[in-house]
Amino acid sequence: MPQNKQIHLDNRPQGEAAVANFKLVQAQTPELSDGQVLVRHHFLSLDPYMRGRMNDAKSYAVPQPLGQVMGGGTVGEVVETKNPKFAAGDKVVGMGGWQEYSVVDGSQVGMLRKVDTAHIPLSAYLGSVGMPGVTAWYGLMKICEPKAGETVVVSAASGAVGSVVGQLAKARGARAVGIAGGPDKCAYVVNELGFDACIDYKAHGDAKSLYAALKDATPDGVDCLFENVGGIGLDAVLSRMNAFGRIALCGMIAGYNGLPVPISQPQLLLQSRLKLQGFIVSEHMEHWPAALTELGTLVATGKLKFRESVAQGIESAPEAFIGLLKGKNFGKQLVKLV
Amino acid sequence: MPQNKQIHLDNRPQGEAAVANFKLVQAQTPELSDGQVLVRHHFLSLDPYMRGRMNDAKSYAVPQPLGQVMGGGTVGEVVETKNPKFAAGDKVVGMGGWQEYSVVDGSQVGMLRKVDTAHIPLSAYLGSVGMPGVTAWYGLMKICEPKAGETVVVSAASGAVGSVVGQLAKARGARAVGIAGGPDKCAYVVNELGFDACIDYKAHGDAKSLYAALKDATPDGVDCLFENVGGIGLDAVLSRMNAFGRIALCGMIAGYNGLPVPISQPQLLLQSRLKLQGFIVSEHMEHWPAALTELGTLVATGKLKFRESVAQGIESAPEAFIGLLKGKNFGKQLVKLV
Repeated sequence: MPQNKQIHLDNRPQGEAAVANFKLVQAQTPELSDGQVLVRHHFLSLDPYMRGRMNDAKSYAVPQPLGQVMGGGTVGEVVETKNPKFAAGDKVVGMGGWQEYSVVDGSQVGMLRKVDTAHIPLSAYLGSVGMPGVTAWYGLMKICEPKAGETVVVSAASGAVGSVVGQLAKARGARAVGIAGGPDKCAYVVNELGFDACIDYKAHGDAKSLYAALKDATPDGVDCLFENVGGIGLDAVLSRMNAFGRIALCGMIAGYNGLPVPISQPQLLLQSRLKLQGFIVSEHMEHWPAALTELGTLVATGKLKFRESVAQGIESAPEAFIGLLKGKNFGKQLVKLV
Repeated sequence: MPQNKQIHLDNRPQGEAAVANFKLVQAQTPELSDGQVLVRHHFLSLDPYMRGRMNDAKSYAVPQPLGQVMGGGTVGEVVETKNPKFAAGDKVVGMGGWQEYSVVDGSQVGMLRKVDTAHIPLSAYLGSVGMPGVTAWYGLMKICEPKAGETVVVSAASGAVGSVVGQLAKARGARAVGIAGGPDKCAYVVNELGFDACIDYKAHGDAKSLYAALKDATPDGVDCLFENVGGIGLDAVLSRMNAFGRIALCGMIAGYNGLPVPISQPQLLLQSRLKLQGFIVSEHMEHWPAALTELGTLVATGKLKFRESVAQGIESAPEAFIGLLKGKNFGKQLVKLV
C-alpha cells in the first residue's frame, strides 16, 4: 500500500490561525477490508468554514480533533477497491481530508459519489458544482428569492460561493453587485463573470466611504444581501437595504479570528423590516439534487464561469489555507495532489 | 360644537424626546359635513412607535408633521353623526390622535370600527385586543412559531405587547421567560401573567451578569426571542439561542433616542443558524381578523390578563409618553380623556 502524507491539526490557534497550527505526518495507507475503497486524491478543497472547526468553541461544526487529519472535501480516483459498487479508475467526490489518499467505506450512503468528468472538470465538484455552488444556490434561491429587477449584493464576490451567487442572480434578471478585495478581483467580477458592478473594499478605509461607493453601485437600493464576510461591509449594505429586504448569512470571515465585528445599526433590521437568516448548506441536503442539476448544466454548457487558485502538494495546504483566510486566493482555493 | 384640546408636535427632539417637544393647543371642533362623525375620545393609546415618528429621518413610519395633532390610536363614543352607518352612542376605535375629539369620515374603510363593550372593556381595544395584541400574535405565530416544550423569551414582558406574547406562548405549551425592569414588574409577570420566569434587567449591570441570570432561567436554551427593546438584552439572549432559533424583531426602544446599540456578536446569527425578522403589524392586515378573534375571546373569557397605566387628561399625554420611553409605565400606557 502507498505512503500517505497527511496534515494534522497540531494545536489550536490563539487569535489568528497560523501555519504552525498544523503538522505534516507521514503515514501508511492500511490494507482494505471488505466494502472499502482506496481513493487517490487529485484535489483538496480549502474552505473558510474550516477555520471555525479549528476552535474548540461552540460553533455550527464539530471541532476538528487535535492530532488527526484535517477534514475537508476531496475529488480523486479509485485506485483499489473491495466494493463491487466502485471500480478502479472511477472518479469520485468525498470528504477525504487533508491527505493524499483515503480509505472509504463505499457502502455508507453519501460517503463517496461517482461523478462525470466528460463534461465537467473534476475540480469543479469542489467548487461551482459542489458544496460552494450549492451554498450559493441555496442562500440565493431559498432565502433571498430575488425577483427580476431587484438588486443582489454579494461579498467575497470573486470567490467560490460569491461568483456563483452573482451569476445565478443575473440569470434570474436581477442586478448583481459584488464586493471584493482589489482592482483585479473587481475587474474579473464585472468583465468575466458579468456582474453589473463591483466595489473594491480595499479602496475604502471606513464604512462611510464604502457606503458612498455602494450607493453609486445600487441606485435602487439593495433587496438581497448574500453575506460571506461580515464586518463593515455588512454595516454599509444594511444602510442601503430596501424595505422587506433579505439577508442570507453564509459567512463571517471577519469574525473567525476571535474578534467579532458588531452590527452597528441593528435598528435598520427593524426599520426596513428585513429578514436575516443564517444557514449552512449541509443541513439542507434535500435541495442538493436540484441545485447540482442546475449548476452542473450551467458549467457543462459554459454558462457558469469560475476561477481556481491551485496550490501544489499537500505540504502547501496550511499556507494556502492561511492565505484564503486573508483573501489572497482568487477564486476557489484548491490543493493539487497529483 | 365642543372645544377640543389637542397636543401638537412643536419641534423635533435632539437626542432624547422631551415634554418640550409638544405643545397644548385649544381648538374648536368643526361642523360636520355629510358622511362625517364626531367622536369623543375616552382613551388615547401611547406607544413606542410614536418616538420614531417624531424624527425626520428615514424610518418605517412617515414622520409626524410639525404643528399638527400627534397621531395615535383612540377609543371613544360617537356623539354626533351625519353618517347612517353610525349612531350616537356607538363605541368606536380609530386613529383619532392626541386630542379630545375627532371628526372622521365614516365611509372610508378602516377609519372607524364599531366595537362590542358588553364583554370586552373599551380600553382593551387599544391594548390586548388592539394593535399591541395583534403585534404580539403576529410576531409569535408567524415568525417565532413556537412548538410545545420550546422556550420563548420576550423583553418588555409586562408591557402591552410582551404580556400577550408570554401568555400566548404558555397557551401553546412553550416555556415563557420575560425580561422586565424592576422586581414589581417581574413579580407581576410570573405571579399574575403566569410566565415561568422573569429577569429584572435593572438588577444586572452588564451583559455578563444578565447572561448568567438568563442561563438560569432558560436551562434548555432559547428557541424564540420576541424582541421589543434591543441593546444588551438582545446580546445576552443571542448567546443563549438554540440552533434554528427565531427572532421576531418588534421594537428597538434602546435605539430610538438617537443612539443605536450594536449587536456585538453577529456571528452567533450564523453559528446558530438563526432567523431574524423585523416587522410592523400594520403591514400584515390580512392576519388581523384571526388575531383579534382569538385575542377577543381570550380577554372576554378572562384567560388573557392585562394591566394598564392610565394618565388623566390630554395635558398629561406628553409626560406620560416620555415616561413610557423610560419604562415608567406598568402595562399598557393610556391617557383617559373623559
